[in-house]
Amino acid sequence: MFSQDDYQWMSRALELARRGRYTTAPNPCVGAVLVKAGVVVGEGWHQRAGEPHAEVYALHAAGDNARGATAYVTLEPCSHHGRTPPCAEALIKAGVTRVVAAMVDPNPQVGGRGLRMLSEAGIKTDFGLLASEAEALNPGFFKRMRTAFPQVTVKLGASLDGRTAMASGESQWITSPEARRDVQRLRARHDAVLSSAETVLADNASLTVRWDELPASVKASYPKETLRQPLRVIVDSQNRLTPDLPLLQSEGPVLLARHKASGEWPAWVQQLEVPLLDGKLDLVSLFMLLAKQNVNSVLVEAGPRLCGALLDKGLVDDLVLYQAPKLMGDEGRGLFHLPGLTRLFQAPKLNIKDVRMVGPDIRITARLA
Amino acid sequence: MFSQDDYQWMSRALELARRGRYTTAPNPCVGAVLVKAGVVVGEGWHQRAGEPHAEVYALHAAGDNARGATAYVTLEPCSHHGRTPPCAEALIKAGVTRVVAAMVDPNPQVGGRGLRMLSEAGIKTDFGLLASEAEALNPGFFKRMRTAFPQVTVKLGASLDGRTAMASGESQWITSPEARRDVQRLRARHDAVLSSAETVLADNASLTVRWDELPASVKASYPKETLRQPLRVIVDSQNRLTPDLPLLQSEGPVLLARHKASGEWPAWVQQLEVPLLDGKLDLVSLFMLLAKQNVNSVLVEAGPRLCGALLDKGLVDDLVLYQAPKLMGDEGRGLFHLPGLTRLFQAPKLNIKDVRMVGPDIRITARLA
Repeated sequence: MFSQDDYQWMSRALELARRGRYTTAPNPCVGAVLVKAGVVVGEGWHQRAGEPHAEVYALHAAGDNARGATAYVTLEPCSHHGRTPPCAEALIKAGVTRVVAAMVDPNPQVGGRGLRMLSEAGIKTDFGLLASEAEALNPGFFKRMRTAFPQVTVKLGASLDGRTAMASGESQWITSPEARRDVQRLRARHDAVLSSAETVLADNASLTVRWDELPASVKASYPKETLRQPLRVIVDSQNRLTPDLPLLQSEGPVLLARHKASGEWPAWVQQLEVPLLDGKLDLVSLFMLLAKQNVNSVLVEAGPRLCGALLDKGLVDDLVLYQAPKLMGDEGRGLFHLPGLTRLFQAPKLNIKDVRMVGPDIRITARLA
Repeated sequence: MFSQDDYQWMSRALELARRGRYTTAPNPCVGAVLVKAGVVVGEGWHQRAGEPHAEVYALHAAGDNARGATAYVTLEPCSHHGRTPPCAEALIKAGVTRVVAAMVDPNPQVGGRGLRMLSEAGIKTDFGLLASEAEALNPGFFKRMRTAFPQVTVKLGASLDGRTAMASGESQWITSPEARRDVQRLRARHDAVLSSAETVLADNASLTVRWDELPASVKASYPKETLRQPLRVIVDSQNRLTPDLPLLQSEGPVLLARHKASGEWPAWVQQLEVPLLDGKLDLVSLFMLLAKQNVNSVLVEAGPRLCGALLDKGLVDDLVLYQAPKLMGDEGRGLFHLPGLTRLFQAPKLNIKDVRMVGPDIRITARLA
């Protein structure tokens, strides 16, 4: 059983882990706290892939004080030689006497080995403390480890009556500047932003993170010089995009999902060949290929056809819906094109996770049931 | 200026007024508290049209203690002989020395006269204490007094993507039992429920208040034996309704809004002839006629055409939208048919007043801006 102190230190480790939220991809956020005789002797969090893990920072800070300490880590310490040596080994060497992990590594290839290595070295190990909080730190990484698919969030902005554009296509601007700033935060938190050639051409969208537009709370933990642009993935089955688009001018990597690659592109533009299914790009293959490229999480910003197709294929995990307090009428464009849906019992169901105001708009966060 | 005691006693008067919420129509809810030397000597609230006003109950309870007391009333005491004698006169006779009214009577024919009558009798009068709370007690009555139109709330149940029915028309049930119970509460709080022949025929709806389905909190303040059915107003321009419908079998008054009356109907069914405008029933005339029949408030439960037409004519005050956590696809039926709306800047805007969960559904309450 866990003591109240255990909860306190693990909470602290979770807090530290969150500091890496915008920078660790494709690695997970992890936090670590070393406690000896009720006092923190070292803490750390993973900051960037290729740099030391959370445990290494904490051990470094603790120095000799690590001997006899308890380590609280938000994820099972690694047992393999990756870009850095295994943390389990480092904890053993430092003389830590107990390791509490919020959860085991969800990767079936690794899960449990780190804890076993520690146990075998005579270290007391516990796990499962604040596990759901630890899960929530890295939904994308954990989903990819477990399923080989990225975690997919569909973001939509609509009127109260569920319209994302007028019948004419006019859609700028339905939601408020506050909601648009909140979308910047969403983009910053995802590894990739997915859209379609159609949407990119219609909206002239660049789909980048503009640091200046991030909410102040995000800026505070995400300095401008560490800004990373998400991979912009554009479904371009008909090869309609051309190098002169604003999307392709602006900094940050772009991936064109096409059936056949063609044309000359700047260095930051990659073409990915995706097989066809029923005459369309096979979205299931596309997402598996993205996961293979270490994409943990994808934010979808697209029209009703692509959103509907993703929903239909079961590829969507979460929905973030901004509802502007206006009514656009039933001839406006809808959110999801679902031609196969004819009976009410077939309608995809969701669980509402959060509802709040963002400026004058309502933001609904829901998970597909 | 008002003292802290004044606020306290007026809050009590507002609380008393609310007890009449389901029964006073077409009269407003009013509460009254008589206080002498810091002690309540009498209180009362208006219960039913034709029965005594709040002040009369409070004076009766106070008896001789009314002499020298301060009266707190949520609405200016009346000065005219209606179904009951004027309350201002009763307060004077009882020897009350100060009257605090939350607001003056909004009816321009009466407003201020009650307070003047009291003043002229040497009673100290104040008004404007907790006025917005007092306004909120009787939105329908006050709107009718000020504008000769009833207050109109459109209630809709839809999926998260703004669909009220599948393309086939299937719509039972989109929202949860909890949301449907909440609608019972809405019906109970409105003088009339408005629908269309089309909706009544398609849904076989009875549109009654079913006391057993009211939320427990409502039942507690609205005993079954005092249940009053709202007037059910059905727009039936083509005379499509027939006396055998469930709507017309069930208890409670019905008003058929038609261009020309026809047919034989039970005693509780009234036909109202409404002039045509552009070949359709003139909804503005209909609402003026309803206000003339002392209808303070109308709850609209109808399809996108009627809801859209009401919105287009500027007849809608409030929207209550229940959103079920499901996605029905862009071929489903929308909320408002607004063919005249082609540009985004023309979209009717609302202010969100309240957002909360009702069972698994989201309930959004908004006011047209």
